Amino acid sequence: MKHWIYPDLFKRMKRGPQIITIKDMAIISAFTGVCNGYRIVDAGAGSGFLAAYLGNLVKPDGFVVSYEKRSDHAKIAEMNMKRAGLEEFVKIKNRDIFEGIDERDLDLITLDMPETFKAVRMSFDALKSGGWLVSYVPTIEQMRTFALECENVGFERIENFETGLRNMLIKERGTRPQTKGIMHTGYITFARKATEK
Amino acid sequence: MKHWIYPDLFKRMKRGPQIITIKDMAIISAFTGVCNGYRIVDAGAGSGFLAAYLGNLVKPDGFVVSYEKRSDHAKIAEMNMKRAGLEEFVKIKNRDIFEGIDERDLDLITLDMPETFKAVRMSFDALKSGGWLVSYVPTIEQMRTFALECENVGFERIENFETGLRNMLIKERGTRPQTKGIMHTGYITFARKATEK
Amino acid sequence: MKHWIYPDLFKRMKRGPQIITIKDMAIISAFTGVCNGYRIVDAGAGSGFLAAYLGNLVKPDGFVVSYEKRSDHAKIAEMNMKRAGLEEFVKIKNRDIFEGIDERDLDLITLDMPETFKAVRMSFDALKSGGWLVSYVPTIEQMRTFALECENVGFERIENFETGLRNMLIKERGTRPQTKGIMHTGYITFARKATEK
Amino acid sequence: MKHWIYPDLFKRMKRGPQIITIKDMAIISAFTGVCNGYRIVDAGAGSGFLAAYLGNLVKPDGFVVSYEKRSDHAKIAEMNMKRAGLEEFVKIKNRDIFEGIDERDLDLITLDMPETFKAVRMSFDALKSGGWLVSYVPTIEQMRTFALECENVGFERIENFETGLRNMLIKERGTRPQTKGIMHTGYITFARKATEK
Repeated sequence: MKHWIYPDLFKRMKRGPQIITIKDMAIISAFTGVCNGYRIVDAGAGSGFLAAYLGNLVKPDGFVVSYEKRSDHAKIAEMNMKRAGLEEFVKIKNRDIFEGIDERDLDLITLDMPETFKAVRMSFDALKSGGWLVSYVPTIEQMRTFALECENVGFERIENFETGLRNMLIKERGTRPQTKGIMHTGYITFARKATEK
Repeated sequence: MKHWIYPDLFKRMKRGPQIITIKDMAIISAFTGVCNGYRIVDAGAGSGFLAAYLGNLVKPDGFVVSYEKRSDHAKIAEMNMKRAGLEEFVKIKNRDIFEGIDERDLDLITLDMPETFKAVRMSFDALKSGGWLVSYVPTIEQMRTFALECENVGFERIENFETGLRNMLIKERGTRPQTKGIMHTGYITFARKATEK
Repeated sequence: MKHWIYPDLFKRMKRGPQIITIKDMAIISAFTGVCNGYRIVDAGAGSGFLAAYLGNLVKPDGFVVSYEKRSDHAKIAEMNMKRAGLEEFVKIKNRDIFEGIDERDLDLITLDMPETFKAVRMSFDALKSGGWLVSYVPTIEQMRTFALECENVGFERIENFETGLRNMLIKERGTRPQTKGIMHTGYITFARKATEK
Repeated sequence: MKHWIYPDLFKRMKRGPQIITIKDMAIISAFTGVCNGYRIVDAGAGSGFLAAYLGNLVKPDGFVVSYEKRSDHAKIAEMNMKRAGLEEFVKIKNRDIFEGIDERDLDLITLDMPETFKAVRMSFDALKSGGWLVSYVPTIEQMRTFALECENVGFERIENFETGLRNMLIKERGTRPQTKGIMHTGYITFARKATEK
């Protein structure tokens, strides 16, 4: 993550082992149009970085509810929301999302956990028409399984992406890309619930 | 741009020839923490896509003022803000930014035009402390000239990036990245005005 | 393939629809140390470009035998070897490689066809100890199936790669990478038959 | 260099600090058609890895002469040629190539040193018609200066490239690219002396 820039928002937050990178968060919010007023469910919270990133975009009128089954992680995430000043807009729910999504009429559901395909059907029900479902997983098999399940369940506009980011170094003796760095983070899949006609 | 997803925001907007890509807009807003309340100046507006993207993120309490020296482009950009429902938050100013920036205490200035380096000094004055200046240019020489000028003027945390995005195709017979596509858009440079101590 | 350079060798050869790219041929020969004297089997020949590329490297003391089950392709490949002046070193065999490999003590077997995994066991028998087996396939599933079969059969040092190549454009007004181009060709897997102790 | 495969040729060679990577060597030889009989000049030798790679391809009828101005490096390179069994085909010359190229009618000249542009004119004279000149440099400015000098001197088909290579990891729980790795090595420029009509 060296050479990458983080918004001040994350400065005081405590970092867990596996955080979705800012370049991937950026594509997720930009492609799905996240802005003030969005109603979002996120799982699993982990340390809460994606939840905080999204919470910062949906305030003052929207909300993020982030599910986290592990109570230790949920506690860290909750503390992080306070440190980021977002506790009003982001709620950490210490529960496994597979047990069900309470919220309805959602604009976006983001899934950053191993078996994202298991939450596809319940996500369809929880999204409003025109809402987006996003999966973020490290392997190609997880990506494929998720995308095929989205098709089965009736989602539309299913697209999978891999993002890249390379630092360009400007030295007195010349300009060149960074020599070593991050070559892969995860695969992002977008799926949309059709807008009612 | 095939295979890329665009937020609904852009749906009714009329597209000019050279639009900054959504993957680059995404990194710009994510790295600089754009959210409700941000005060942003943008130049040149072009068709106004970046201005609209940012305007959508800063509403309801922030604003974007986008400078555009060509009156024909300014008219299209202005129309596009109406089509996107953002005319309240994004103002198109039909003027060359090199003549001066009227606004002060800005959180972010985005420059998407050929000679971004010429606006560095005036940007420094217009930004609040902690504010960000961003340049988006197609060539390495433009990137370098801008970054060095930022250093001269006293900006900190100057970093240059190239983003990438690749579609992963899921077919019945197998999974693979897209065969052909966009290999380069532009170089993004971030520079920060030091926070007062 | 625009912007790529091809050796003169290919100049007079007739091109079929799906040719392995020169960037991928390059890695195959470089990683496996192809040079004068190598004994190589290739399948399927297609138009014979990989066979010609390898034939040019193994002459005067080595050989390439390229299997091709379709007689129309085999005829084109044979004509291409003559056009390239390599008919002495590259033999096109109009037969399905899955029926068996006649040659023994091979240094390298290259497989550029859909179900490369089916030829793994017979390749093991045909290679000399220390010899290399290479698969070139478009999808991740094909790559994985091949690599796992190599492991089952007893190959060592199994590695999978994806190559990239980007043209840098030098114009009067600046330097930048090509805008559009080839983003994916195929996955290359290398597997080695252990050297006898 | 982890995860990359090296030909046995390099196994016993002593490695210096800055070696051109095998992926770049591969493109250089493949694009220029290096094979048995090629007459090649290389500079600077460094530890002699590129010289050995090329020497292995041009034997038994061709040769490589590799210029190296530092006597300590020249000694290591010479020892490495013996270790690789290539002393008959690769000659290390302890001299600065800028003092002049003795050889004539060359098929290829490879330049892997800081100021490759200074050797362009003398390379033109030393190459046969149809011969190739190749520069390998880390920065964009070096690449550009070299390419423009090639144009000035009368070379044709000048093309600049950046290569990429990514390992794909196959684990029981899934398939994905390597997480971290080499993101940039050098820029390769090819220039050709026109074939006489």
